[in-house]
Amino acid sequence: MKTLRVPEATVTRLSVYSRFLEKLDRKGVTTVSSGEIAEGVVVSPAQVRKDLAYFGEFGTRGVGYNVKDLMRYTLKILGLDHQWPLILVGAGNLGFVLCTYKGFNSRGFSIAAVFDNNLMKIGKMVGRLEVLPMEKMPEIIQKHKVRIGIISVPPRAAQEVADQMNKNGLEAILNFSPIALKLPDKIEVRNVDLSVGLEILTFNLVLRAAQSLEVQR
Amino acid sequence: MKTLRVPEATVTRLSVYSRFLEKLDRKGVTTVSSGEIAEGVVVSPAQVRKDLAYFGEFGTRGVGYNVKDLMRYTLKILGLDHQWPLILVGAGNLGFVLCTYKGFNSRGFSIAAVFDNNLMKIGKMVGRLEVLPMEKMPEIIQKHKVRIGIISVPPRAAQEVADQMNKNGLEAILNFSPIALKLPDKIEVRNVDLSVGLEILTFNLVLRAAQSLEVQR
Repeated sequence: MKTLRVPEATVTRLSVYSRFLEKLDRKGVTTVSSGEIAEGVVVSPAQVRKDLAYFGEFGTRGVGYNVKDLMRYTLKILGLDHQWPLILVGAGNLGFVLCTYKGFNSRGFSIAAVFDNNLMKIGKMVGRLEVLPMEKMPEIIQKHKVRIGIISVPPRAAQEVADQMNKNGLEAILNFSPIALKLPDKIEVRNVDLSVGLEILTFNLVLRAAQSLEVQR
Repeated sequence: MKTLRVPEATVTRLSVYSRFLEKLDRKGVTTVSSGEIAEGVVVSPAQVRKDLAYFGEFGTRGVGYNVKDLMRYTLKILGLDHQWPLILVGAGNLGFVLCTYKGFNSRGFSIAAVFDNNLMKIGKMVGRLEVLPMEKMPEIIQKHKVRIGIISVPPRAAQEVADQMNKNGLEAILNFSPIALKLPDKIEVRNVDLSVGLEILTFNLVLRAAQSLEVQR
């Protein structure tokens, strides 16, 4: 079977395109050009065409793309044509932000349960969810057919939580702890570090001063 | 002057390498091989060598890299060899998380001031900072020589805040609002969407099932 390597930046932009297409669709717009997508999401038209070309032929020359078709297709590529129940471990401030983050629901993600090992937190409400003890994890994962877990615990607890998620059959982890988790290859891991975004900005500011390097998007 | 294009993924990994090198340095380790860096941060040794090669020749064949030199160099490339004062606008839950995020300080970032236009929030404490009214922004930016702003307001307010940051001379914006800001090219913008990480995971899970595409890191 053929294997096509897709740059992660393309997947990220695909996510941005699909949001823009949803907005157009809600407004009743039926066709859109790569130039209009590019302007709406602030990238170049050539980049839009290149990104979409990874996944096949879209659009009609001179007419553009059918908004509804392209929207559905991008959502399908991203796996967002159905709901993804999640579990979250770590009911601190960041856990609260994530549990109440509206951006998840609109993309088909819903947090099915929140866990913590802190007795002071268990039983408390975080948004509409009651914080559950860690022992309940296997039961909840099975009941809701959860495949993805989010880690928002302090660094010292992150590896142990990741191991438990692995043991309980989760297939992917979104990790907000600033440590590199050691897990078998069969688990997809994505690390979110809130300061990396800042470091890319400072890198760019320094480069701009030096005028000798620039970041390729 | 020559222009070298550096992939954003390389900058992100550079940030990860520098953290790992700091950890080694604290432990008193003096030399490290690309294989050891690779194992420590979970990428391939070839990737480590390729990433570092963008910035010149490092290391001695058979000996490896000098930890302290490479650490200082990576921090310098990232612009992290000095402090960066920041301002943050939007004192909601996410603003609270960001103001109390320990990961910023350890990388040379410090939030100099928090702003909000909500009278209920102005004057309240967020961590060690008092929430200031928007009118104070020019004064604070000048006083602390701030070049970077963080936006953590609701989507409907984000463009207006970005325009104010631009008017007040900021050079870079880290945007947590799920909208594409329209700003002049001279401002560096980096969008952080907390659900994009999840979408890359679901993309990978779907692909893995299809076995026909894979994400290139």
